[in-house]
Amino acid sequence: MAQVMSPQNPAIKLIRSLAEKKFRQETGLFVAEGWEMLERARKMGWTPEHLVSTEPVAAWGQTRPILVTEKVMEGLSGQNNPHNVVATFGQRYVGDVTANGVWIALEDMRDPGNLGTIIRTADAVAASGVILVGQSCDPYSGDCVRATTGSIFGVPVVRMETEAFIGLCKSWPGDVVGTHLKTTEDYRRAYKSPTLLVMGSERRGLSDELAAACRTLVRIPMPGGAESLNVATAAALMLYEAVKP
Amino acid sequence: MAQVMSPQNPAIKLIRSLAEKKFRQETGLFVAEGWEMLERARKMGWTPEHLVSTEPVAAWGQTRPILVTEKVMEGLSGQNNPHNVVATFGQRYVGDVTANGVWIALEDMRDPGNLGTIIRTADAVAASGVILVGQSCDPYSGDCVRATTGSIFGVPVVRMETEAFIGLCKSWPGDVVGTHLKTTEDYRRAYKSPTLLVMGSERRGLSDELAAACRTLVRIPMPGGAESLNVATAAALMLYEAVKP
Repeated sequence: MAQVMSPQNPAIKLIRSLAEKKFRQETGLFVAEGWEMLERARKMGWTPEHLVSTEPVAAWGQTRPILVTEKVMEGLSGQNNPHNVVATFGQRYVGDVTANGVWIALEDMRDPGNLGTIIRTADAVAASGVILVGQSCDPYSGDCVRATTGSIFGVPVVRMETEAFIGLCKSWPGDVVGTHLKTTEDYRRAYKSPTLLVMGSERRGLSDELAAACRTLVRIPMPGGAESLNVATAAALMLYEAVKP
Repeated sequence: MAQVMSPQNPAIKLIRSLAEKKFRQETGLFVAEGWEMLERARKMGWTPEHLVSTEPVAAWGQTRPILVTEKVMEGLSGQNNPHNVVATFGQRYVGDVTANGVWIALEDMRDPGNLGTIIRTADAVAASGVILVGQSCDPYSGDCVRATTGSIFGVPVVRMETEAFIGLCKSWPGDVVGTHLKTTEDYRRAYKSPTLLVMGSERRGLSDELAAACRTLVRIPMPGGAESLNVATAAALMLYEAVKP
């Protein structure tokens, strides 16, 4: 197998371009780095479009690996200590929300690290999926995918406009629970399944519109000095409460 | 009040240098940005060494504000959308751990965002403090301070060598609880106060040495596909469990 030494190789250039949202949108692809993450992809039945490695590796499905120098890999990786394998996959969004288990909806999520961490926690509790409502950051950005540590391959992601999501809330057969600072209802309670959790954005919390669409608003108590929690922290507390035996 | 227009102004140069750990260590100072965070500092009785603003503001204690142009502020800030105020403060480490309430100890923390998020959650639950064990990242780095959203001014931080910390565990009058993947004990249980929570590093989890020093090891269940949780997520679940009424 010939080793690619030139960063001008078309496949290498394409993969590098995926650091930009514009090119992720154009191609519908995203990048995942490192065997740990790729093993999860394999287990979940994903097949890469590109597979690039600094060491000879076997083909993955129909995808033949591209062997590159460490220097080329350094240019590809978004990391200071690059992994020795990088792959691209087609982005997947699920079209429909089936009302079962626990879903978590996120309004106007800004921070890809927070989004990735929430996807990871949703995966840990075997949530049914994550719904991105309104203007969300890209779940397929490098920062988000890294923060999922592979859970991006295991958790269904749905995108919804605010109006459609409000419709979903109305027709939801179980509890629709939003976190809100202006309620006194403690988040530690029994939730009626299927449960739809709704979290507001980092800056503003839940919008009035979505707060009104929730059937229950709860508050995570903060007896100390902090006025709010990180959204991924709050999401984790809610997810673990919702799946509590 | 004269407006500083030159990025070569000695105070401005000093503040900018605090982006580097080396200069934070040399000066013992750190930077906090934005009124939201500074209000917390004021409330907790901190006084800045420097106070830099793009708008005229009142003196803070003996500290006279330095008025700067927006251009100078842009050079100072670690942010894309700079705040209009930046201040420096002396770093504080608490010398002793008083055995009361809930403490959380973090072994070899790598990521300043995770550390800052944990300090924020510790503040939210009114924990007694955070203990940094072994090789920790700097709690006074810009990324960590930002992630605390001001809680850095409210939560006592202690640094300890591993050996001294093991001694503390031995003499601790209440529960010493570590999270570990290789136990079946559920984390949802009653903890004996005062509670000392012990979290391992992002990559390796708890070292054998610290796991042996804990009196109880617990596991946060992960019925889904993820093999681990983000450390700030795990810390939040433990902190909320430890303060549960």
